[in-house]
Formats: sequence, structure tokens, C-alpha cells
Amino acid sequence: MQLNKVYKLVQQDLLKVEEQFRLLVDSQHGVFPELHSMLDQIIIGGKVIRPTLTLLAGKFYKYDLNSLLPMATASELLHIATLVHDDAVDKASIRRGRPTINNIWGSERAIILGDYLFAKAGEFAADTNNLRVVRLFAQTLGTISRAELRQGFSAFNLEQTFDDYIERIAGKTAALFAMATESGAVLSQAPEKAIERLKEFGYNLGIAFQIVDDILDFVSTEGEMGKPVGSDLIQGTITLPSLLLLKRYPESNPVKRLFDQESDKQRYVEQAIEMICNSDIIDECYRVASAYKIKACDNLDLLSDSPSRKALFALADYVVQRNR
Amino acid sequence: MQLNKVYKLVQQDLLKVEEQFRLLVDSQHGVFPELHSMLDQIIIGGKVIRPTLTLLAGKFYKYDLNSLLPMATASELLHIATLVHDDAVDKASIRRGRPTINNIWGSERAIILGDYLFAKAGEFAADTNNLRVVRLFAQTLGTISRAELRQGFSAFNLEQTFDDYIERIAGKTAALFAMATESGAVLSQAPEKAIERLKEFGYNLGIAFQIVDDILDFVSTEGEMGKPVGSDLIQGTITLPSLLLLKRYPESNPVKRLFDQESDKQRYVEQAIEMICNSDIIDECYRVASAYKIKACDNLDLLSDSPSRKALFALADYVVQRNR
Repeated sequence: MQLNKVYKLVQQDLLKVEEQFRLLVDSQHGVFPELHSMLDQIIIGGKVIRPTLTLLAGKFYKYDLNSLLPMATASELLHIATLVHDDAVDKASIRRGRPTINNIWGSERAIILGDYLFAKAGEFAADTNNLRVVRLFAQTLGTISRAELRQGFSAFNLEQTFDDYIERIAGKTAALFAMATESGAVLSQAPEKAIERLKEFGYNLGIAFQIVDDILDFVSTEGEMGKPVGSDLIQGTITLPSLLLLKRYPESNPVKRLFDQESDKQRYVEQAIEMICNSDIIDECYRVASAYKIKACDNLDLLSDSPSRKALFALADYVVQRNR
Repeated sequence: MQLNKVYKLVQQDLLKVEEQFRLLVDSQHGVFPELHSMLDQIIIGGKVIRPTLTLLAGKFYKYDLNSLLPMATASELLHIATLVHDDAVDKASIRRGRPTINNIWGSERAIILGDYLFAKAGEFAADTNNLRVVRLFAQTLGTISRAELRQGFSAFNLEQTFDDYIERIAGKTAALFAMATESGAVLSQAPEKAIERLKEFGYNLGIAFQIVDDILDFVSTEGEMGKPVGSDLIQGTITLPSLLLLKRYPESNPVKRLFDQESDKQRYVEQAIEMICNSDIIDECYRVASAYKIKACDNLDLLSDSPSRKALFALADYVVQRNR
């Protein structure tokens, strides 16, 4: 399995990231039982791609675990915090195969738990003792939330272009991938040129990752994804597959009908899924994702050949090949 | 008017804080119209007590506007962000006499706007270039959200003590007041002892401020408060006045009935307000608030007599005398 090869190089340190999470959860044990349960529910079972990126990006120059460990932890916690809020916004009931926080405790608690996680992530970022990285952390949260707002305000709007889509996923996903690699590079005292390349690697990989996520929302199963299929369309979010479908059938299109009407939503979603899966749209989406993956990897040319560079290549392969 | 005397000393710099807000709002003009409207709706008309505290606390030693200005801005933005989320949690429809973000745009947008404001506040905090202050900022957000969670989980629970109440408002309000003064002291290179005293001043003033807020929720009018009277009880939040009422009438009490039943809520709220206002409970609450105010001011003994110390005394007086 590809991913094992990726993780191997940083496995020991990823365990330390997990230990940080465990300490955070345990800190509330017997002190604030509800918060303990909420943290225990959410800080588990992710693919930990973002901390892996931070640690691997930190391997090219002076690997400084004292600062890389808190930043890797901050990257994943920031991601988790945004998921908690996203699920509250989308009223999602399941994530990673488990009930969401808003499902169990209501969206009011999910709002505040997300804030708490942002704060903890911010504390970890501050523990790097590196102001540049702290500033990057805050800017990234700003970029993510601005893109999420954009997505919300453009929901059920059919007048969206490919560039709009890329801009949206750049903010929503690629910014955090870019933060993960850039911070790893900064904290390992990489020269500016290498920082820029590793940041660009993260950015382009993030775009590829989100395109694949958006593909999986159409072609995967709930069992594999850990969340319902077609959920983007239900939310009124146009992603690359539905964008291409609209382009091919501008007149009569289930996405149009779905966005126009209140009833029969599920039927139109299923129609859209079927039309997309029976066309070459998915192939085209994968071609776009692969192009971004290649663009990502091109940025690694400048860096010395090393186990960590190989691991980043392998991670890039995984990102476009994964099925969950 | 008391407050004018307080503001006078830092008026020029408070205008600069407002200018930062204006720039933030204007940055979205014509770029992201919906975000521009949301920011324009929310970043206005507060009492700017927190930035005033930061600036005044920064006056005792080396007043460094380059770092105090971003931190004063961060203090107020952090406050505004928490209000946006609080209103979404409480489904509040009016704040400062204006419709809330969730009222106009829905709670989904309010969640993400709050996140955006946290991020911007964090960026301002990072602009101080002071890691200690950045860490304090993140810790304070953690303290606030943890206390808000506590409040949520203890809603409609009658088994609450005075100590529970103080612990809750310490996290919810006093932590941010303490951050405001402590950061001002740190950024002006105050000695540790003075930092500690200014932090304690902020903390105790924050407790006094919240007690008065909780009093006003019973004795004020919607016109003065800019939000409905009795809203805490409706949310199931026990504050000092209702805590004392429960203590005096442990058996038959409108608060108990309100928390026990689904219907007739408004009637029991009105009964509780009437009973509280017709007793000496409000006087007792003011005595508690004044005790915290005095405790706050005692901390200023160590500091040299100066216009800024006078202004902090005046601000403390205002906090317990205000009617909105």
C-alpha cells in the first residue's frame, strides 16, 4: 500500500502527533466530561495527511522536531476544527463513518467546540516559537473561512466557471496543504527558494486532492467515504463533475432541475450521478487532478533526491489514486 | 460623562483602531460584496472597552503604538467574533439595537464569518511580533470557548453555585479583559510585577462588568440594552440575580417552573424579573460587582499615579455605573 511507504519515514513522529492529541483529549478527563467526550469523538481516524506533509517538508534541511511537532499537530487540529464547523453548516450527520458532533450534541455545541479547537491549534502554532509560521497559520484560517463563505454564497448558483471552482478549492483545501508544507520548510530553516517550492507543492497537491474528493463524492460508496454520496449537490455546491455535466448539457440537466425545485431532490441527484458515471466526465476530472499532481511534483525538482522527496512523490500518487 | 474622561487619553489611538476596522471592511468592497455587507453590519458601535484597556495598560511604561495598535484591534475583533458565534448559538435576533448576522444571513454564514473574524484577530495579534502575546491570544480564545461550552452544558441546570457562576463568567468575559490589560502591559515592556497587577485589574474588572451585564439583563429595557430583556433566562442561563432568587425561594420559584416546562415561558420570565426587581437582590448583585471593582482597583496601587491610572479608575467606575 502506497500510504505505508509515505508514512514510514515519519511514523515515529506521527505517533508523537497522536500523543499530543491524546494528551489534549485526556486533559479534560474527569474535569469536563462532555468536552472530553466531544474531543474523543472527533480527534480520531483521519488520514493525517497534513501533519505528514509538515514533517516530510521539514526533512530537507534542519529537521527540528521541537518546532515541527507542534506545527504538525496544529495543521491537523486546524483541519479538524474546520470539519466540525463545516458539518454544522451542512447539517451533515456522518463523517468518517461516525456521527458528527452536531448530530450528537447539536450545532450550537459544534460551533463552540470548533472555536475551542481553533484556539488549541493556535496554541500549538505558537509553540513553534516562530512568528512567521504563526502569521501563516492565522492567514490560512482567514483564507479557508473566506472560501467557505464564498461557497455558501454561491450555492445553487449555476453561473460558475472552472476558474471560480479552482479559486474556491484553492482557499478551502489547497491553502491548508500549502501551509502544512510551507511551515515545515520554514521551521527547518530551508532557503527561501526551497520554501517557495515546497509551498507550491502543497498548494497544487491540495487542488488535486480536492478534485479527487469531489470525484469520490460521485463515484464512491457511503461505506468507503464514511459520508453520503452526492452530498455536495444536495448542499447546492457545484464541483468539477457537475460543472462539466452542466457544460455538456446546458439546456436540460438534472443539476438545473435540482437547483430549481424543492421536491424530488434525491431523484435528480441520482440522475446526475448516473449521467456523470456513464460519461467520460470522471476520466476528464482525473486528468485535471493528475495535471495538478504533476505540477505539484515538478516543484520538487529543485530539491535533492532523498527518501523524503520519494515519500512526497508517493504521497502525490496516493492522492490521485485513493478511493476514500 | 465618565466614559469621555476615560477615552480622552487614548482617543487619537482609538480612532486608529477604528481605521483598522474600516480598512478591513473596505478590503472586501467590490471584491466580495456579501462579506463586505456582513463586516459592515457587525464592526460598528461597540463600547470599545477592550481596546481602551489595552491602550491604557500600555501607557505605564514604554508606550509602543506599533504593537499596541494591532493588539487593541485584535482584542476588539476577538470580542466581536465571539459575539457573532454567541448570537448564532442563542439564535439571538438583535444585538446593539441591530439585527444579528444570523438573523440576516442565517446561522450557517454566522459560523463561518465568526471564523473569519477569529482569523483576522489572530493576524492582528501576530502583527505585534510578540510571541508571548500571540500565545496569550490563543489561550484566551480557548478559555472563552471552554467557558461557553460549560455554559451550554449547564443550561437549565438548577444545581449551580456562586462559585460555578464566577468560574463561568471568569472564562466567558474576564479572561478577555485580562488579556486586554496584560497584553498592553507586556507590549509596553512593563516589569513582571506590573504585568501581573494590570492583568489582575483586567480580570476583576471583567467579573464586575459581567455581573453588571447580568443585572442589566433583568432591570434594563430593550431600548437601552439593544437586545431583549430576560434573554439569559430564556436560554436557560442562570446568572447572579436568578441564582440569588433561587436561593431565597428554593421551593416555589418561577425560574424552576420556567426550566421545568415547555409552555408559558414568557410568563415565568416576567414573574422572575418582577420578583428580582421588587427585592433587594439587585442591590446585592451590585454589592458583589462593586467588591470586584474595588479588588480590581487595588491592583493599581503599585503603579505610579498618572493620567492613565486615573482613566482606569474612571473606567472601573463606569463599568459598575453604566446602564447599557
